[in-house]
Amino acid sequence: MSAQDAGFKAAVHEARQGSSEGGVPIGACLVSADGKILGQGHNMRIQKGSATLHAEISALENAGRLPASAYQGATMYTSLSPCDMCTGACVMYKVKRVVIGENKTFVGGEEYLKSKGIEVVVLQDQECQALMEKFINEKPGDWYEDIGEDE
Amino acid sequence: MSAQDAGFKAAVHEARQGSSEGGVPIGACLVSADGKILGQGHNMRIQKGSATLHAEISALENAGRLPASAYQGATMYTSLSPCDMCTGACVMYKVKRVVIGENKTFVGGEEYLKSKGIEVVVLQDQECQALMEKFINEKPGDWYEDIGEDE
Repeated sequence: MSAQDAGFKAAVHEARQGSSEGGVPIGACLVSADGKILGQGHNMRIQKGSATLHAEISALENAGRLPASAYQGATMYTSLSPCDMCTGACVMYKVKRVVIGENKTFVGGEEYLKSKGIEVVVLQDQECQALMEKFINEKPGDWYEDIGEDE
Repeated sequence: MSAQDAGFKAAVHEARQGSSEGGVPIGACLVSADGKILGQGHNMRIQKGSATLHAEISALENAGRLPASAYQGATMYTSLSPCDMCTGACVMYKVKRVVIGENKTFVGGEEYLKSKGIEVVVLQDQECQALMEKFINEKPGDWYEDIGEDE
């Protein structure tokens, strides 16, 4: 399995885990330049009452303290297009690439990432999209709260 | 005391608290449109080994889950110019204004905030600057790690 496969699979695994917990079903995984998983996690709004533990933030948090060099050449895999906060986190830590499961249900800061020289890949993965569509149908209020939007 | 005074004082109090704990001395406070403190916090990189609990993220996290309407008209007070992650968090939650203690030691996403219609006020507070200068002199490695830069 390639590093990209492993990172994306871990992100989808996290999204499924979030779904099984009744949470916002978004997962992420940070993979180093040499293919090592540095951290992975999923959205914890519902599980922890968290306003900031989006999937990408969880993955960065779970990776722990790292020197700037650890993020060089790294890829952030995320099941959904990243919001402005998670986009900014990727910009701040200067990851090389963001691989996105899908951007049909939400489009975040993809153009801003590109403007900062970060490669953006969108996979349009059916499972990622199905997890989000199910959640948004069942719990629209929780979803809109998660992205700072009125329902 | 005006709402602005209370919010900024709370942010500086948090920065001092971070300093007394040996941490990155940056504090923040989120104040609602009607002057109520919704949450406050300080950088927890050293205290919690956290890669994401910058001051503004801590303040948002400590405010807990809130509907989008709670951020409308809100002000984020922060002792230091916000990094790209914290800038993105303010953009995502659509705060009205960001009041910055100082931007002499670091300039973050101020122009991006303005481009999104968020008011930016820089106070150039001497104490905020002194706290940062002392920390950067004593622990440069921790500081550069916190903003994803090589020392």
